[in-house]
Amino acid sequence: MYDTVIVGSGPAGLTAGIYAKRAGLEALIIENTPVGGGQIATTDRVDNYPGLLGINGMELGMKFREHAEKLGCEFKDGQVVSVDDRVSSKIVKLESGEEIETKTVILALGADHSKLGVPGEDELRGKGVSYCATCDGAFFRGKEVAVIGGGDVALGDAIYLSKFVKKVYLIHRRDQFRGAKSLADEAASKENVTFLYDTVVTNINGSENVTGVETLNKKTGEKGTLAVNGVFIAVGTTPNANGISGLPETDEKGYIKAGEDCATSIPGVFVAGDLRTKKLRQVITAAADGANAITSVQDFLKI
Amino acid sequence: MYDTVIVGSGPAGLTAGIYAKRAGLEALIIENTPVGGGQIATTDRVDNYPGLLGINGMELGMKFREHAEKLGCEFKDGQVVSVDDRVSSKIVKLESGEEIETKTVILALGADHSKLGVPGEDELRGKGVSYCATCDGAFFRGKEVAVIGGGDVALGDAIYLSKFVKKVYLIHRRDQFRGAKSLADEAASKENVTFLYDTVVTNINGSENVTGVETLNKKTGEKGTLAVNGVFIAVGTTPNANGISGLPETDEKGYIKAGEDCATSIPGVFVAGDLRTKKLRQVITAAADGANAITSVQDFLKI
Repeated sequence: MYDTVIVGSGPAGLTAGIYAKRAGLEALIIENTPVGGGQIATTDRVDNYPGLLGINGMELGMKFREHAEKLGCEFKDGQVVSVDDRVSSKIVKLESGEEIETKTVILALGADHSKLGVPGEDELRGKGVSYCATCDGAFFRGKEVAVIGGGDVALGDAIYLSKFVKKVYLIHRRDQFRGAKSLADEAASKENVTFLYDTVVTNINGSENVTGVETLNKKTGEKGTLAVNGVFIAVGTTPNANGISGLPETDEKGYIKAGEDCATSIPGVFVAGDLRTKKLRQVITAAADGANAITSVQDFLKI
Repeated sequence: MYDTVIVGSGPAGLTAGIYAKRAGLEALIIENTPVGGGQIATTDRVDNYPGLLGINGMELGMKFREHAEKLGCEFKDGQVVSVDDRVSSKIVKLESGEEIETKTVILALGADHSKLGVPGEDELRGKGVSYCATCDGAFFRGKEVAVIGGGDVALGDAIYLSKFVKKVYLIHRRDQFRGAKSLADEAASKENVTFLYDTVVTNINGSENVTGVETLNKKTGEKGTLAVNGVFIAVGTTPNANGISGLPETDEKGYIKAGEDCATSIPGVFVAGDLRTKKLRQVITAAADGANAITSVQDFLKI
């Protein structure tokens, strides 16, 4: 029986593994990709993980993983299908049918940014297509960019980017934003932000890098092309825990409810990283969750 | 006028600086030592900052600092004496008399472990004397160690260390622990933990490394020597914000009250890192605070 089974091998899961081994716990990390690293592995350049300025995302993920491996973390490939809360233990069941018994579980499955679903989006991800203005915005200083979406995140991204890019086109499919009015007002006050209402992006252009987007005004039927170097897609995020039964209570979006201590509605089941209800989803905050979750595991085990 | 003035240049302050520059904020970091880095700079080897296994504490602090410098953070040497909350700004006053105007303040002054105050303590710090079992315990695998203190932290340290060291002497100056009974019971149940009540340490022995401690039983007057390689001092911690006027509300120990969003009782004044009321004080959680504090600053500034 493990002290803790960690589901997911992004920054939160790997940091939980590091802290578990440091605390002398028997810990297993289950991952559904052979290498792991989480979302960060798809980011070309990370400038905001303190101490490792400008590191490639895949390389950062590998450094986390090597750290956990060197401390003796045990890994297993597998897709978790259920977490069963029994009287004195939890059973983590894999798609293969294998059942793993553990005293506690840390859910660190992460989240992913929702996709727009247009041609060019996947091909140009990391080459001008980004799902995180905070992460990648600084690379577009002085350039023209498009932000796609109509919620708080899209508005916030447009405002954020307007401070250092040359021009922001904020493209929204409806005739008004669903984000906060104060944010919409503020975005409107920026000279270099232009709103395109009732407009959808039908294609992202470029081969090596993004060169523009094709637009369609749904009311007028007018088509157009915007020459931009960056496309920030802010049409929501999707937690990665779908398809697992026996999960703790979530918010309306499917994020598992927990505070800084990572404790969920099920005693002994913790959530760390982007899958947790939290404000700022970054590598550094995911890693902190991993550490905090192990402290909570220790409290739960009374060791 | 700055968008934010960050007081302190440990992991929390430097991460706040990194996130501030990434967000395009005008930020100043005030530090009272010429190099900064915080408590971590005095730690010989850090094994729990994810991605940088086994790094020297001073080197880790320098990496954080270089990161902040390369992103353009502005630094100033100075000792802050007051934070004055005015109608539309804050005034941070230095000992030199200089006044700095800013829209927000992030207090990242850290905390320090209280000292025992015996000969050998300062000389052997990092050479067997430690103030953090979670940080340094793993270096004493299979060895004999002393834990000094009688609270939850000392008891927790003894239990934690008992899992991988050969022997733990838990030395407490009173005839009973002030920590939780459950923890004391659990420590008592460990075969390799021995309690020494009514006992004080009068000297820590060693030249290159710790070789033992001199003890005195205050009731019997009996003196003794324990041959140990490690001495874990857990006699409380001290927040570093003493002597600054105009600070937000604190708990009874002097830590500034705030949740994960780092917001204090004074709007526009935030606290990040070890100085905040929190459970786990580590480099990774301090750094996460720095990032979260900047998110809160952005919300406060409505940008």
